[in-house]
Amino acid sequence: MSGRIIVLSGGVGGAKLVLGLSRAADAKNLTVVANTGDDFDHYRLRICPDIDTVLYTLGSVADKDRGWGREDESWQFMAAFRELGGEDWFNLGDRDLALHVLRTDLLSKGESLSEVTAKIACRLGIEAQVLPMSDQSVSTIVDTVDGRLAFQHYFVRERCLPEVTGFTFEGLDEARPNPALIQMLDDNPSAVIIAPSNPFVSIDPILSVPGLRDRLRNCGAPIVAVSPIVGGQAIKGPAAKIMNELGIGSSAIEIARHYAGFIDGLVIDNVDSEEKSDIEALGVKVKIAQTIMTSIEDRIALANCALDFACLIGKESTK
Amino acid sequence: MSGRIIVLSGGVGGAKLVLGLSRAADAKNLTVVANTGDDFDHYRLRICPDIDTVLYTLGSVADKDRGWGREDESWQFMAAFRELGGEDWFNLGDRDLALHVLRTDLLSKGESLSEVTAKIACRLGIEAQVLPMSDQSVSTIVDTVDGRLAFQHYFVRERCLPEVTGFTFEGLDEARPNPALIQMLDDNPSAVIIAPSNPFVSIDPILSVPGLRDRLRNCGAPIVAVSPIVGGQAIKGPAAKIMNELGIGSSAIEIARHYAGFIDGLVIDNVDSEEKSDIEALGVKVKIAQTIMTSIEDRIALANCALDFACLIGKESTK
Repeated sequence: MSGRIIVLSGGVGGAKLVLGLSRAADAKNLTVVANTGDDFDHYRLRICPDIDTVLYTLGSVADKDRGWGREDESWQFMAAFRELGGEDWFNLGDRDLALHVLRTDLLSKGESLSEVTAKIACRLGIEAQVLPMSDQSVSTIVDTVDGRLAFQHYFVRERCLPEVTGFTFEGLDEARPNPALIQMLDDNPSAVIIAPSNPFVSIDPILSVPGLRDRLRNCGAPIVAVSPIVGGQAIKGPAAKIMNELGIGSSAIEIARHYAGFIDGLVIDNVDSEEKSDIEALGVKVKIAQTIMTSIEDRIALANCALDFACLIGKESTK
Repeated sequence: MSGRIIVLSGGVGGAKLVLGLSRAADAKNLTVVANTGDDFDHYRLRICPDIDTVLYTLGSVADKDRGWGREDESWQFMAAFRELGGEDWFNLGDRDLALHVLRTDLLSKGESLSEVTAKIACRLGIEAQVLPMSDQSVSTIVDTVDGRLAFQHYFVRERCLPEVTGFTFEGLDEARPNPALIQMLDDNPSAVIIAPSNPFVSIDPILSVPGLRDRLRNCGAPIVAVSPIVGGQAIKGPAAKIMNELGIGSSAIEIARHYAGFIDGLVIDNVDSEEKSDIEALGVKVKIAQTIMTSIEDRIALANCALDFACLIGKESTK
């Protein structure tokens, strides 16, 4: 695939495929649209967990075991911060802090999140383009039986334990899609890939930015998602738990139903192959593959699979 | 000495005597008034170098060799910050950062610098009272032949190399003395000690806060300074260099002349004993002692010497 590839991504799970795509295709032709609904201010530092995970992953400095933050990380700041009475529910590594301090300063000087992200990507030697979904702040609020929680409070502080009843994205009235993304969508991209991120808290915020869902749908490129649910479970994170709490059950077909009307195709795992015909009945094409990404080879293989699938769908639609 | 002891202090040199005073007297009766003219915002973090040095010293977490910052410090933040393009002329240790992040957050929530300092002092188990000279921002500007420099730019970034022509303290119009200090001065303190800090950039900012010099002079307590110049040299920092550049020469007598009319007595080093009579001719009593503080015993001994000297002056004045 030679044209521009646009991938929508959340954090850890999504970043794995993003890395695969950066190797499977020419990284210069890859645009990563990162969810910013998780972003928050913590002790006056602006933290953008999904952008950071994408940047660290593509910059080859991500911690491979932990799944978030930087490799070779140390925790002296946290130890001292705790001693001084600072809250310690959100871990800030010593190296990771550098990004937060720098970004907070640049933002406060009036640079946009896009400009700051591009600057840091350049410093990390990243060839792919990493774009926040919007330069305006959008905040995912998790509605739970225990009340409304800011996303990181739900996700990190409360360890996803409260039962979810729904989600609200605050700030949408003021939010506009990333202008660089809009320009790209006008320029005949080859494929739009939805990474196997949590549909509710990683992808839906992106698609909720006013106008963005329609612009993606109408850009002419095939839209292919990779299911984050494998055998009824999420590989990482609370997607399956959330789906069950919302009463929709966790399965690849429910992922297809969630995205139906927007995506052209869904890559599902081998173990879910029996769901293929039910998904196709929703008007969503299906590709069966190994979607669990352990090695870098797995990531590249799944990326190639998604790109080939998108390419095929593109060709069929122009027949 | 049983009443309240007030000590005016800058950073490293002053903090040595402050530590001695906290051991020589009942720490609960010790009030440290720290210079805040060095304070600055660095990448949106509020940094108060002199307060920090006093806090770390009294909290027994100061680095003993380096003279500033925390012991057992690590520098992972700086390494990552540099990689990302952050300026690295001001070193921020991983542990030290905890204080800056916490303070910046608390200040932005509307707490005064006094409140924040007290909170951190409490967390570090410090019994002495540590007060910023003012809760309003006062900034020391160094006038040099190369132009005006913010203090840390002169002191750290330019390593005190530019030739000094004078000093300006910005923000004095809005600054008021620390209210807790004013209350204490109304309550018959036993002694006011001026630590062997740089008179121009550590003590003068304190004395420049409108009304503070007169309030100190009129509080009824003897005022005793310890000379930061020993044998024509400063033990630490640019005091001697600055005095020479200002054309006043670096000697104990010039320290006495600088403080004349304000202090009652000056502790000078054994090596400067020949200057005694000239200093006394200025109306300043003299005590000769070993003023170079290497060990903790040196600090306690010098603290006791200054306190005894102040006590003696106090008794003489009430005769």
